[in-house]
Amino acid sequence: MREDAGGTGGTVAIQGEAGSFSHAAALETHGPTLELVPCTTFVDLFRAVAAGDAASGIVPIENTLAGSVHENYDLLSVHELHVVAETELRIRHCLIAPPRTRLPQIRRVASHPVALAQCRHFFLTHPEVVAVPAYDTAGSVRDVMSGKVDADAAIASKLAAELYGADVVAEGLEDHAENYTRFLVVAREPAAREPAESQKTSLMLSLGNTPGTLYRALGVFAGRGLNLTKIESRPLPGRPWEYLFYLDVVDTGQGIEAALEELRAFTFGIRVLGTYPAR
Amino acid sequence: MREDAGGTGGTVAIQGEAGSFSHAAALETHGPTLELVPCTTFVDLFRAVAAGDAASGIVPIENTLAGSVHENYDLLSVHELHVVAETELRIRHCLIAPPRTRLPQIRRVASHPVALAQCRHFFLTHPEVVAVPAYDTAGSVRDVMSGKVDADAAIASKLAAELYGADVVAEGLEDHAENYTRFLVVAREPAAREPAESQKTSLMLSLGNTPGTLYRALGVFAGRGLNLTKIESRPLPGRPWEYLFYLDVVDTGQGIEAALEELRAFTFGIRVLGTYPAR
Repeated sequence: MREDAGGTGGTVAIQGEAGSFSHAAALETHGPTLELVPCTTFVDLFRAVAAGDAASGIVPIENTLAGSVHENYDLLSVHELHVVAETELRIRHCLIAPPRTRLPQIRRVASHPVALAQCRHFFLTHPEVVAVPAYDTAGSVRDVMSGKVDADAAIASKLAAELYGADVVAEGLEDHAENYTRFLVVAREPAAREPAESQKTSLMLSLGNTPGTLYRALGVFAGRGLNLTKIESRPLPGRPWEYLFYLDVVDTGQGIEAALEELRAFTFGIRVLGTYPAR
Repeated sequence: MREDAGGTGGTVAIQGEAGSFSHAAALETHGPTLELVPCTTFVDLFRAVAAGDAASGIVPIENTLAGSVHENYDLLSVHELHVVAETELRIRHCLIAPPRTRLPQIRRVASHPVALAQCRHFFLTHPEVVAVPAYDTAGSVRDVMSGKVDADAAIASKLAAELYGADVVAEGLEDHAENYTRFLVVAREPAAREPAESQKTSLMLSLGNTPGTLYRALGVFAGRGLNLTKIESRPLPGRPWEYLFYLDVVDTGQGIEAALEELRAFTFGIRVLGTYPAR
């Protein structure tokens, strides 16, 4: 396994700080010896990997409550990177504070707005606690510990508590337990094919405006028993009401290559983003 | 035509202020005699229509550059409202200032962040001009005119300039000319069927996890020559990696009803949001 293809170690770009959920996902895919390249935005992350400042990048692509991260679908389209692996992470929000803080002492809680929104029930049942929006979950823990933010606690991952020497005051603050995020690993080169029971292929497809083309395209996969696990559409800039489709197709031995050949015969824009072991 | 079904006049809820693009869309669908019910958020808009505080509501659902407005797809799902009409609006951003202001005098320009982002080229070519994020496009014009915001100009629709007695200093500030937004009209009762060459039906569909079901569902339409103009997927909360699909299907005489009957036989969650004349 190569370092830039979701293997162990190597430099890994994430959006956010050490201790973020992206960091936790990177530990899953790259193991504990990775070297983190924190990026402020997803644009920076894609640029860091494209420029070789990081061997790979961790890209959250979909959450089971919030849906697709459309910005990252668009960034996959404008960059020439390859998807080399995927991983899935349960998002478990913790209330994190300096050691020996107790819940009744907490009045102000900082975190990323998305994390705050996923913990609405906690704030409803603790009306004395104020939510303080911040730019990052893990960064909020760091800032609470250093006194850089006017808050007594933060909402972030358990990993963030460990990294910054903070205590977990409460766990599982999220409104829905079924809160998972799927992350893609991107790199400059495609993944080396590994033997795996099932391989997932991510691809982009532009179909034009001809009625029935999407149905015909999906038929190429369905006819072979290849399972479509995700379909996402994004607008094609400059071509109103035309779409770029992103598909994930799982191959358990039916042969995706022949399907792609058949697709190429009647679609004018097809790009394989990557083939990697399905989780 | 009834007042609550995209007809002329009546009370119409919009998100934002008078002079917003939603207001311009409402004038298209309801004519000049409408009575506006401005709402702060889309949640408020759906509630206003559901509660009868407005006879109908104007819901932006998709932009040709930014893509779908996912929040509004989710709101269609949680409310029992009906889609009764659609309209499409070219989004043309104007630089708007108090009368007799000239471009070289303008240093600070206020608008909604989405509008500012769509005029990136203007700010790049006018580096002396600062973008000031605000909560609304039309509201920024009003606030510039009343001196309530620290800005010399605003970016908004021509309609906003007319409403607040301001001048259009420059027109077509948007980076891409092909900038259109599609709006739906929602109401408590379904639209009365009007004779129209082509009818559009918006529906929601949950398909479970069985491979090939989406293909089979699309086949019900494709097999009849019914054109699928839009497909959008959103996560099903509490059922990780399962999706709710939103479809728009255009019927030019093939008969959507029989297709829906066939669909109901093998899908467990189908809801017709509305049938209305296709634009």
